[in-house]
Amino acid sequence: MTLDKIGKYEFLVEPFHCDFSQRLFVGHLGNHLLNAADFHSNDRGFGMTYLNEIHKTWVLSRLAIELECLPKAYSRMNVETWVDGVMRFFTHRNFKMADAQTGEVYGYGRSVWAMIDTQTRQPADILAIKEGSIVNYVDTEKPCPIDASSRVKMGGEADLVGSFETHYSDVDINGHINSVKYLEHLFDLMPESWHSTYRVKRLDVAYVAESHFGDVLHYFKEEVSPGDELYRIVKCTPDGNTAEACRVAVKWAEK
Amino acid sequence: MTLDKIGKYEFLVEPFHCDFSQRLFVGHLGNHLLNAADFHSNDRGFGMTYLNEIHKTWVLSRLAIELECLPKAYSRMNVETWVDGVMRFFTHRNFKMADAQTGEVYGYGRSVWAMIDTQTRQPADILAIKEGSIVNYVDTEKPCPIDASSRVKMGGEADLVGSFETHYSDVDINGHINSVKYLEHLFDLMPESWHSTYRVKRLDVAYVAESHFGDVLHYFKEEVSPGDELYRIVKCTPDGNTAEACRVAVKWAEK
Repeated sequence: MTLDKIGKYEFLVEPFHCDFSQRLFVGHLGNHLLNAADFHSNDRGFGMTYLNEIHKTWVLSRLAIELECLPKAYSRMNVETWVDGVMRFFTHRNFKMADAQTGEVYGYGRSVWAMIDTQTRQPADILAIKEGSIVNYVDTEKPCPIDASSRVKMGGEADLVGSFETHYSDVDINGHINSVKYLEHLFDLMPESWHSTYRVKRLDVAYVAESHFGDVLHYFKEEVSPGDELYRIVKCTPDGNTAEACRVAVKWAEK
Repeated sequence: MTLDKIGKYEFLVEPFHCDFSQRLFVGHLGNHLLNAADFHSNDRGFGMTYLNEIHKTWVLSRLAIELECLPKAYSRMNVETWVDGVMRFFTHRNFKMADAQTGEVYGYGRSVWAMIDTQTRQPADILAIKEGSIVNYVDTEKPCPIDASSRVKMGGEADLVGSFETHYSDVDINGHINSVKYLEHLFDLMPESWHSTYRVKRLDVAYVAESHFGDVLHYFKEEVSPGDELYRIVKCTPDGNTAEACRVAVKWAEK
């Protein structure tokens, strides 16, 4: 039996996953997207559970989220996800987030995933997995009315605006810093007054290199215009090496 | 219609809520308990949703969790919760955590909650709410085979072992530092090698005073014996005042 191309997963907006304005933290929303992607790919035979057996895994390369608003505590949110393009080394996966009762659309997401060999850390051929069966699940019809995810090009000067040590709770099931933690730490740079006034309108994240337990993350910020910010996140490993971990573009909107 | 005294809530153990050993973070487990308590009390008419209308709220005073193991990624966990005692200013609420499919018991929890007036911050009479209807939901039969929660008495010397600034993502729906974040930061004091070898066997938390966005939390540790630790968490407010926020006793077991 072939499953639908589009997977739909319902998440309860748990009150203790909400911020002081009673709305879901964007970080928790991001984790719901990652979980939905994982369920969708596992259910269709090309998820982490199967890939780990053959020493492969998915690596998130880019993530874009565009939001009209965030769901309220106690509501139920549906996350729909589908693959809208497959190449040899990359897949494109989209998301739609909506209220499960009213259908009100919260927003959309786009993401790019690479497959790698976990032993060599080299790119792996997605179309060689199960004779390329992933192509049976590509849906190019369902609309995802937001711009493609961006590489997040930085311009010139960026200022160091904060640094975070990584700890146990930053590390995910794969042993790397959780992709969403880069965003949580970024939001943590802002004071209470900022979060009272602004919400995230659009986020673009370009992941460059994984970081690990014990790395220190340095946040460099470039303000393009008020409410339009670029961040370069640089990891510093315990032996003193530095490397770019990811870049983030954030557009804020007044609440 | 009167609901059952015991509420049962199912939680999917989402992979991105799990640590590098593929087991649910204790912090996420703690949030599931808080959410279950909230659902149970709301469903029975004495939850935060109703209390907020009459300027009252629940405040967590003590929490004890005793664990045989932690649930694995992708499993489903049932949290049962019930009130096993009500006094004028406090209720006792218990928890049982088990695998939803196999029934394997992960552990139990005990908690003590106070009700306060949100305007005066003074204790409120629980038995005056809806003519004391909460007493209809007291269940003293269901077993909760763990010791009562502790006040966590500290002995003599305690050493400063770490400090954390609080940020946006630490703040809960009530505008206070989330009760579970004190624990997450505590676990973050330990290196990777510790978490590879040990798991939490028992936790006791005694909450003393709420802390707020921008407070710095200082962790003072007293080792009773190897694997048996006490922590005093002191908040330092932006204007330089210090006060005890909570005390935590942790017993660790080898994995």
